[in-house]
Amino acid sequence: MGSVHVQPKERSASNGKRRDVHVAAGAGPRESGDKQTACARVLAVLSAFAATSGASLSLTDISRRAGLSLTTTHRLVGELTEWGALERHDRQYRIGIRVLELAASSTRGLELREIAMPYLMDLHAATKENVHLAVRAGLEIVYVERLHAPGGVEILSRIGGRWPLHATGTGLVLLAHAGYDVQEQVLSGPLQRFTSKTICDSRTLRQALAEVKRTRVAVTDGQITPGAVAIASPVHGADGEVVSAVGVVVPSNGFAPRGTERPPAGGWKQQTIVPAVVTTARRISRALGARH
Amino acid sequence: MGSVHVQPKERSASNGKRRDVHVAAGAGPRESGDKQTACARVLAVLSAFAATSGASLSLTDISRRAGLSLTTTHRLVGELTEWGALERHDRQYRIGIRVLELAASSTRGLELREIAMPYLMDLHAATKENVHLAVRAGLEIVYVERLHAPGGVEILSRIGGRWPLHATGTGLVLLAHAGYDVQEQVLSGPLQRFTSKTICDSRTLRQALAEVKRTRVAVTDGQITPGAVAIASPVHGADGEVVSAVGVVVPSNGFAPRGTERPPAGGWKQQTIVPAVVTTARRISRALGARH
Repeated sequence: MGSVHVQPKERSASNGKRRDVHVAAGAGPRESGDKQTACARVLAVLSAFAATSGASLSLTDISRRAGLSLTTTHRLVGELTEWGALERHDRQYRIGIRVLELAASSTRGLELREIAMPYLMDLHAATKENVHLAVRAGLEIVYVERLHAPGGVEILSRIGGRWPLHATGTGLVLLAHAGYDVQEQVLSGPLQRFTSKTICDSRTLRQALAEVKRTRVAVTDGQITPGAVAIASPVHGADGEVVSAVGVVVPSNGFAPRGTERPPAGGWKQQTIVPAVVTTARRISRALGARH
Repeated sequence: MGSVHVQPKERSASNGKRRDVHVAAGAGPRESGDKQTACARVLAVLSAFAATSGASLSLTDISRRAGLSLTTTHRLVGELTEWGALERHDRQYRIGIRVLELAASSTRGLELREIAMPYLMDLHAATKENVHLAVRAGLEIVYVERLHAPGGVEILSRIGGRWPLHATGTGLVLLAHAGYDVQEQVLSGPLQRFTSKTICDSRTLRQALAEVKRTRVAVTDGQITPGAVAIASPVHGADGEVVSAVGVVVPSNGFAPRGTERPPAGGWKQQTIVPAVVTTARRISRALGARH
């Protein structure tokens, strides 16, 4: 079976757009008017929940978001609830605990996070700042772990949250170590602007990536949140490939050591935090079986 | 749509048993020999991965575990990979990062965990022991978070892992606060034995549940792992219902304060840890909006 290749298809269920495929109510499980495959319809129902964290949705909501008839939605929601992918609560549906169980068996997701956790907690305890663990999914990063610092910078990350590669510290690390194709796709595409400091031209981004690859650390200043500096470093897997990135977000004003007048460029705290981030990334790499 | 009720169906895709539904290869997407619904087939493919953590499976493995023909498996795996539920790596498939994103929007799963995390980390730092956050799923608990103590008791928990209600500290808490139906189902069914200390008769279990409800804390000694004492307390949601349980696992030999000769029944450490667990559970309840 090794010769089977999966052909990319049109991303019908996953592009987040609402489709208006409504078929006659009561037409049964195989409505001829609905051009989606059965699998795509199941995924469309699940996608309805991906848009909003912690969402409880009614059958009508799900039907509208998934672009499916109420009849089809009702049938699929029933089966998904029975399996545990959805849970019913007060006539509303939400993502079920079975999905967490499934996520726990994801090598790149909760399993990576389980191995990395003790080191992330030490980094969090030592820095008292927001700590991230991220992996690349296409042209974005996905946060696998986030340890929030109660007094730290207010940032927008959450587990499962996605951000573009070019604008985040962990994203720059993962992009710098991605294949040529991925880099060219990002460099040739439009680069979304979040603040006046976001790197939005491909020339500057190319230089930044070379620097990240050379120094093994990315430092970005206010590219998504003004006043927040992100410091990130690569995590290697057993085969030496970069599988993840560890990052810390600190306030850009930093903390000046006693007796000094003004912080150096990049601030005091950032400079002292870089070795802690790099060390943590190396420790996690070793725990994953990497040999430096 | 409020009047729609979801009827329980036969749990075909979720009971973990292998079914030998093999249909003629090349029969296309709607094989007449396969009696499962299309949705059940999709879920059977996902279930193939739920059994083993971090599993990478070949198409043949998935086909065998799901009880589906290779043709059907190939087609569904292609669609699931395209959507991101599965990822392909060296001719093997594994659970994709998209499932983690979906799990992140689970109110009872990663969202609860996100709110509880700062308090769990404090409990972990204060006790230096294994810390758990669990929810009930049917007659079992599912761990939503586990903070591992490097020098702590070796325990078998992992995020997404399931255990019977009667044998775990968090399980006793959740069972004590579950409805009559759930309690009767557990009390009338066979109670699995893990060690010589596991509560396996319904009379003792009934007494234990009453005690847990009265004291707001469960203390179990070596019921799953010999030498491990579990201490757990209920977490309430905004509507006052018990939504989760926090637990700590400590060695049953405990630590005797200096100058004392022998620990009291239950050990020194357990006694000092009970208030910390109860406090943490109350703090998380408040963070969830509960009013005590």
